Amino acid sequence: MCPTMHRGDREPHLVIIGGGFGGLELVRNLRKAPLAITLVDRRNYHLFQPLLYQVATGALSPANIAAPLRNLLRKQRNVRVLLGDVVDIDVGSRRIVFREGTLPFDLLVVAAGSTHSYFGHNEWERTAPGLKSIEDATAIRRKVLLAFAEAEKAIDPALVPKLLTFVICGAGPTGVELAGAIAEIAKDTLRHEFRHIDPASARVVLVEAADRVLPAYPPDLSQRAREMLERLGVQLRTLTRVKQVEPDHVALQYGDREENLPTRRIFWAAGVEASPLAKTLAAASGVQLDRAGRIPVQADFTIPGCADIFVIGDMALVLGADGKPLPGVAPVAMQEAQFVGREIMARLTGAPPPSTFAYHDRGSMATIGRLKAVADLRGWHFAGALAWFIWLFVHLMQLVQFESRLLVLIQWTWHYFTRNRSARLITGEEPGTQTTDEAKPLAGVGRE
Amino acid sequence: MCPTMHRGDREPHLVIIGGGFGGLELVRNLRKAPLAITLVDRRNYHLFQPLLYQVATGALSPANIAAPLRNLLRKQRNVRVLLGDVVDIDVGSRRIVFREGTLPFDLLVVAAGSTHSYFGHNEWERTAPGLKSIEDATAIRRKVLLAFAEAEKAIDPALVPKLLTFVICGAGPTGVELAGAIAEIAKDTLRHEFRHIDPASARVVLVEAADRVLPAYPPDLSQRAREMLERLGVQLRTLTRVKQVEPDHVALQYGDREENLPTRRIFWAAGVEASPLAKTLAAASGVQLDRAGRIPVQADFTIPGCADIFVIGDMALVLGADGKPLPGVAPVAMQEAQFVGREIMARLTGAPPPSTFAYHDRGSMATIGRLKAVADLRGWHFAGALAWFIWLFVHLMQLVQFESRLLVLIQWTWHYFTRNRSARLITGEEPGTQTTDEAKPLAGVGRE
Repeated sequence: MCPTMHRGDREPHLVIIGGGFGGLELVRNLRKAPLAITLVDRRNYHLFQPLLYQVATGALSPANIAAPLRNLLRKQRNVRVLLGDVVDIDVGSRRIVFREGTLPFDLLVVAAGSTHSYFGHNEWERTAPGLKSIEDATAIRRKVLLAFAEAEKAIDPALVPKLLTFVICGAGPTGVELAGAIAEIAKDTLRHEFRHIDPASARVVLVEAADRVLPAYPPDLSQRAREMLERLGVQLRTLTRVKQVEPDHVALQYGDREENLPTRRIFWAAGVEASPLAKTLAAASGVQLDRAGRIPVQADFTIPGCADIFVIGDMALVLGADGKPLPGVAPVAMQEAQFVGREIMARLTGAPPPSTFAYHDRGSMATIGRLKAVADLRGWHFAGALAWFIWLFVHLMQLVQFESRLLVLIQWTWHYFTRNRSARLITGEEPGTQTTDEAKPLAGVGRE
Repeated sequence: MCPTMHRGDREPHLVIIGGGFGGLELVRNLRKAPLAITLVDRRNYHLFQPLLYQVATGALSPANIAAPLRNLLRKQRNVRVLLGDVVDIDVGSRRIVFREGTLPFDLLVVAAGSTHSYFGHNEWERTAPGLKSIEDATAIRRKVLLAFAEAEKAIDPALVPKLLTFVICGAGPTGVELAGAIAEIAKDTLRHEFRHIDPASARVVLVEAADRVLPAYPPDLSQRAREMLERLGVQLRTLTRVKQVEPDHVALQYGDREENLPTRRIFWAAGVEASPLAKTLAAASGVQLDRAGRIPVQADFTIPGCADIFVIGDMALVLGADGKPLPGVAPVAMQEAQFVGREIMARLTGAPPPSTFAYHDRGSMATIGRLKAVADLRGWHFAGALAWFIWLFVHLMQLVQFESRLLVLIQWTWHYFTRNRSARLITGEEPGTQTTDEAKPLAGVGRE
């Protein structure tokens, strides 16, 4: 299988792949460990993903929710940060492989997270971007803002409804938050800013295969979320599946009924799958991945047959007390990191290892819009303004840098009173243009 | 030449190309004018260019210095904002031409600004990006931060000095500000963040063809700026010309002496030229552009032969009291906009036109680093901490949105005390990788 760890007279080298919630928590838990730690990430920053939709909708800037990993860890002398894209894990020779070199390890923790899943239709990604990275967020921001700008100057008035129809696939927390925020942009943020179109005429459609929004939440909160979304004008399509995604429409199926929805703005929040590194590990340890590409780990989060390779976070398939897999959320990754940190310390010091892992669910929250949120906190259900303030407070406190907390607080306060969004920039590409053979007069000018 | 304006019973249609300092000022000055105004810009935001180098060096986020044009003008009912790239101006038929259509005008003000000039070597742009747009700024930010990250894991130690040599071409305000900020990043911001390299070993070289830095400033301030740059460790090469830019070196010429400087980080702040729209206008009006591509305008800022087409800002060649062309700075563009605003109002109302244009120079300022700046204010020369505080105050007050002022103030205060820079994100592309045929062990690991 995989060779056992060779321990010489030097400190063991622990490599952690991924500086997300799990990887960062683990590094911090090992600050006193007699280890040489290398934290590897494709990005130079830790990203606070729960607020990524606020970047996608222009309420916050990318830097507000991204903290440089090197800066966060500058005082922890037993860790160095390496920027690199891990393409393979060579379990036999105990090395991780980058495109430009390899890195040997004694202990390895893989916390590489997850990416969008298009359920076998990866070709949809170009048309229907998901929301996992800063680049995704600025791409969605560009698409949302360009829709209104292009509608304002559309030559063909028939194009306007197509440009102003936003379809969000998947009504989990990300889909709900995105749909609510786009509806608020159309109704509040852009009010008075256009002369030829009414931004409030935009149509936001939220598609969900299950029978309710936020299917992982208690049914009464799903119902409250539904009411709040409908109050914002969001059109809900539950029990509806996405059959096809095309640049100018999306094909939906509800039971036997099919519908073609003309739109140029489709966003994907329907599913995630584990980092492809899970496949490498599964092949090495001879286990089967689950449908979401997660690897079933041992009780100590190692993979079968490799006692020195751990997997935590979105990549690990761990069953909760109810027999269902734990969700891919930050608290799960962080608690797993704490457990694995204790396990590693036990191995290094000879202390007894931690007992069985048990996930402590402190609750879940999703926000829909201004003064609109739902929260399930240890069985207590909240919906509306109170849930929204709890949501704000909890997310603000979880930002890792005090400066970010202050900047986000100011922008949220501003947004609350003015309904403006300060980071409404169309960046990254030249403004989209419709190519025509002949230069036609632009619409809405009326000066012929 | 060009047909005279046809005035029917409708309000004349004024088209303004460019929402920079000139264009925006003009729109605001015409808020009470009986005009239908269309403001056209390639971007959906007004950019506060004087602080762009702070985005390029991770001190501020793009949205802090960019305000959505539609939002700024939402209350001014006689203006609409159009997002579009003007590719041509058809003077004969009085239309501006986009790729996707045309827009007729009665009056036209062209305020499309300037872009980098590589003095006939446009192929250098790929290697040596300039600093004119948000995308430029995030590209430079990426290049600066990646240099240190790549050096940290360089397989070949000989690569490190090459990666950590930053060459800035041009020692005007932008070049000086960029050089000073990169030196501070190396010395202060990144301190304690790396384990294998010493960021402070980075070399920052500032190249200038004239005999001193800030050649447009009084000589005593140039001298003070030179001292401050040298205190930051910046190496100055005055009387030095850039002969060749290549991906791994820059060839410099000082008198008869040539030098090849090995570097992978070259930034361009050496020259600008007017928007290519000036060529179209020059051809229509039969005038010659100057070397910087600017169009000589009449006393009322119209172009010869076309009384209804105005040019202001960086595109207009206007001589000052000293017989030299006015510089391409915000105050010039704004005062020209105010003059043209009065001229247009006079034409509409029959009031007497404004008298001769005279530029009121309130001074100029450049910042070099923390507590280091120079300022020439109506002949009063300041250098050092006082100049720096004046610089901070003036720039803060000029930001168009109060929210931006607050956010920038907080980030500057933070930066002042911690020397940290909050917006240090490598975004926009996958981290650069060196391709090797064979996977080699990464440097600095020492675990073989």
